[in-house]
Amino acid sequence: MSSSDIFIGETIGTAILILLGGGVCAAVTLKASKARNAGWLAIAFGWGFAVMTAVYISGPLSGAHLNPAVTVALAIKSGDWNNVPVYFAGQLLGAMIGATLVWVTYYGQFHAHLTDKEIVGGPGAQATTAKTVEAQEQGAGPVLGIFSTGPEIRNVAQNLATEIIGTVVLVLAVLTQGLNDKGNGLGILGGLITAFVVVSIGLSLGGPTGYAINPARDLGPRIVHALLPLPNKGGSDWAYAWIPVVGPLIGGAIAAGIYNVAFA
Amino acid sequence: MSSSDIFIGETIGTAILILLGGGVCAAVTLKASKARNAGWLAIAFGWGFAVMTAVYISGPLSGAHLNPAVTVALAIKSGDWNNVPVYFAGQLLGAMIGATLVWVTYYGQFHAHLTDKEIVGGPGAQATTAKTVEAQEQGAGPVLGIFSTGPEIRNVAQNLATEIIGTVVLVLAVLTQGLNDKGNGLGILGGLITAFVVVSIGLSLGGPTGYAINPARDLGPRIVHALLPLPNKGGSDWAYAWIPVVGPLIGGAIAAGIYNVAFA
Amino acid sequence: MSSSDIFIGETIGTAILILLGGGVCAAVTLKASKARNAGWLAIAFGWGFAVMTAVYISGPLSGAHLNPAVTVALAIKSGDWNNVPVYFAGQLLGAMIGATLVWVTYYGQFHAHLTDKEIVGGPGAQATTAKTVEAQEQGAGPVLGIFSTGPEIRNVAQNLATEIIGTVVLVLAVLTQGLNDKGNGLGILGGLITAFVVVSIGLSLGGPTGYAINPARDLGPRIVHALLPLPNKGGSDWAYAWIPVVGPLIGGAIAAGIYNVAFA
Amino acid sequence: MSSSDIFIGETIGTAILILLGGGVCAAVTLKASKARNAGWLAIAFGWGFAVMTAVYISGPLSGAHLNPAVTVALAIKSGDWNNVPVYFAGQLLGAMIGATLVWVTYYGQFHAHLTDKEIVGGPGAQATTAKTVEAQEQGAGPVLGIFSTGPEIRNVAQNLATEIIGTVVLVLAVLTQGLNDKGNGLGILGGLITAFVVVSIGLSLGGPTGYAINPARDLGPRIVHALLPLPNKGGSDWAYAWIPVVGPLIGGAIAAGIYNVAFA
Repeated sequence: MSSSDIFIGETIGTAILILLGGGVCAAVTLKASKARNAGWLAIAFGWGFAVMTAVYISGPLSGAHLNPAVTVALAIKSGDWNNVPVYFAGQLLGAMIGATLVWVTYYGQFHAHLTDKEIVGGPGAQATTAKTVEAQEQGAGPVLGIFSTGPEIRNVAQNLATEIIGTVVLVLAVLTQGLNDKGNGLGILGGLITAFVVVSIGLSLGGPTGYAINPARDLGPRIVHALLPLPNKGGSDWAYAWIPVVGPLIGGAIAAGIYNVAFA
Repeated sequence: MSSSDIFIGETIGTAILILLGGGVCAAVTLKASKARNAGWLAIAFGWGFAVMTAVYISGPLSGAHLNPAVTVALAIKSGDWNNVPVYFAGQLLGAMIGATLVWVTYYGQFHAHLTDKEIVGGPGAQATTAKTVEAQEQGAGPVLGIFSTGPEIRNVAQNLATEIIGTVVLVLAVLTQGLNDKGNGLGILGGLITAFVVVSIGLSLGGPTGYAINPARDLGPRIVHALLPLPNKGGSDWAYAWIPVVGPLIGGAIAAGIYNVAFA
Repeated sequence: MSSSDIFIGETIGTAILILLGGGVCAAVTLKASKARNAGWLAIAFGWGFAVMTAVYISGPLSGAHLNPAVTVALAIKSGDWNNVPVYFAGQLLGAMIGATLVWVTYYGQFHAHLTDKEIVGGPGAQATTAKTVEAQEQGAGPVLGIFSTGPEIRNVAQNLATEIIGTVVLVLAVLTQGLNDKGNGLGILGGLITAFVVVSIGLSLGGPTGYAINPARDLGPRIVHALLPLPNKGGSDWAYAWIPVVGPLIGGAIAAGIYNVAFA
Repeated sequence: MSSSDIFIGETIGTAILILLGGGVCAAVTLKASKARNAGWLAIAFGWGFAVMTAVYISGPLSGAHLNPAVTVALAIKSGDWNNVPVYFAGQLLGAMIGATLVWVTYYGQFHAHLTDKEIVGGPGAQATTAKTVEAQEQGAGPVLGIFSTGPEIRNVAQNLATEIIGTVVLVLAVLTQGLNDKGNGLGILGGLITAFVVVSIGLSLGGPTGYAINPARDLGPRIVHALLPLPNKGGSDWAYAWIPVVGPLIGGAIAAGIYNVAFA
């Protein structure tokens, strides 16, 4: 694969991943969305099929890493770090494009959700102010959740552990896929199986932190959240931002270590 | 493929697509349906498996486009526009047959839902009239939704953008499928993967407009809605009808352009 | 395939189909079940994966028809009616065994649901009697629904049409599967695809009648419902019983006709 | 396969199975989990994809039994009992590791759920005591359910029968898989099909006892529940513990018998 194919593939693939993954969070969260309150199963399947769609589209160009933790693990496994910066660049750019496309797709829904005219436009300044504060808590919180992950209970050790554990499962499943595919040309099934691995991680390990398990998936959209002109959007929670970056990178490295020791 | 095989395949396939796709909307919406209020996840899986079923049945005859946006994209990719009108004709006819079969399947449910005897049959003409108006708003609205899509927030630019973005994802996934299938005869998996791509688009991008992403899927059933003798059915919202036709066609063309530049 | 393999395969396969299919209805319906009120999506996936499981287990022995409508359609397609009675016998026997196993699996749940001690055991004979009647309506109704299908709106023409339409989709998908599988040995995927076709029919066409789409699936368990010593079980609704037998047989024949005209 | 590969494969695989399977129970049950109350469908898909993920990761090392009932059935089928103790040891150790990882992943959620500060910390010792008792019933009960299974209605005969029946379906599906895979190298699909068989058993047969269908899945985590320093965790219900061990072993043996008589 040429560097330009890798960069284009990762950019397109990660953009689609975040468009669909952030999209399901917007669909379930925002006012005036037909999918509002569709529940956690919709989130989990939405992210799983987002991965699948992105993998099949970008696989022929870049091999569809779409995740710096996967890129790091494959570099550790192979010992070849040459294209790692190109993968990272495409992944971060793609994630930012994808998050922006979520905003375009749900433009009116974001506005309706965050301005909440029924509440803010009511008579009585005192009440309005109080309700605006409440809206910032109840409205803006979930809106950041459309872009990036956040913990239900803020605890550095647990949050980091949760992200590491989830990423170990993901990356170990990716690394061992080749072992199941013994020259029978069934690589095409990989995207489908990875989709259900991601659904599994979402259902089972997503409860505490929202399962970033991918530094680009979290950091790129967080940058976009900070830049977009959304009213009442609240902060981008930069204090937490390092955990979904560092945790998955550690998890990817651990998975590569397990693979090299037990499977290689 | 002969023209007659294409026409028959697209007619049968699109009829099954709309029978099952419109069917799940009827199942979830109408009174006296066992699946009532089954939720958005049911809608998304229902449409996804509708596509899968139609693809496997019609694939051997026509290649299973089932969607003018796919037909246009494949014509742009190949440069061959010869059979495009045959595909379009089969798709529109099939969509109209499918929508009619939804009406047959849910005949009693449509009637119960739209006449709403408990409300209309009560004593007091004044109250009855008011409630009939309410029934038209609460009842007839969803009934059009069984046939065709409509936006939660009416905004031409956003609605068009949402349909374009959804269709780009769908058509890009269809066009790149051949690249994953490197001569290993696994084309049979395509219908399953496409099903989950459609589930993904439904979960993630369906919130604002109901994801037509297919001109025939929207226009054919809208014509049938206008023609069917349904009581209190309300208007067919022709003002919106051009968006789910034009948006997907633009999306298909953009996807073909991306494919020709980045993947070919 | 020998007649004895066919008989054993269809008996085991249809028993598993009805154990799992009736099982999900029991799981969602009965008191003291962990899956109570899991919703229509659970029903639809439950029946779909019931078919898949039964197909993979019985396929190597009998080809996994598991449905007289499929057997009739394949006989029309091939012109070979020799083994049809053996298939029918295995299917009906298997369905009865499966329904009995549902009763064993949910023995305590059936008893708790139908006797409803909280209601019946309360003080006050008058109230008890009224509530027992109510329990028969609210309790026994769903209990028949664990065994056999029934319409939400009783209308011979519509109910028959709904069962015919659903079966045409199912059988057409089964008949055309071989056309997708062009000698590449992918028959193993058939069970999975059929599973999702059945999920699709359940989500989209199951609302009016509960989608029998299989005479054995409905008749066998109805006989078992009539025979089992369930308290307060109510009637077995024999007046409706012919529709889910005749409708699917007509649907299978129509599908075979469409196949022979358009696909063969 | 070497004994060490078998031991390592079963340990890693069963650890992942229980991490993901126990994880979805924690996700749906515990306070301060984003997936709380996601419902039975989430449980069923969560366990199914847990099996799939564990099968693909450990398959290349140990063949991915992950379940003493499967190991026993394969030993009966083949007559080779040599590696059975190694499989058992890896499965039990893996299950205990997996249950411990669930505790790590949901550390703060377990604490919040079991201490329930809003209730316990309130004023009034009398009320607090009463509510602590209630918390033990409403809180601790589900917490054991994150580790091990328990019946809705306690009835040795029915509970045993339910576990036997569920395991027969599972193991028969595993044993017959090779018969569908006629030398076309499609063994890779096995993990996916097994996943949906497990979803099916969960949806259809899980209502009465929570479908252990695997002695290691139940016993290992129950030991961990007894050992972990969880506040207010309640008892580990050792009186029931033999049923999800003995039932699945009987079920596995019956399935092997059916296989040897009808399929071999």
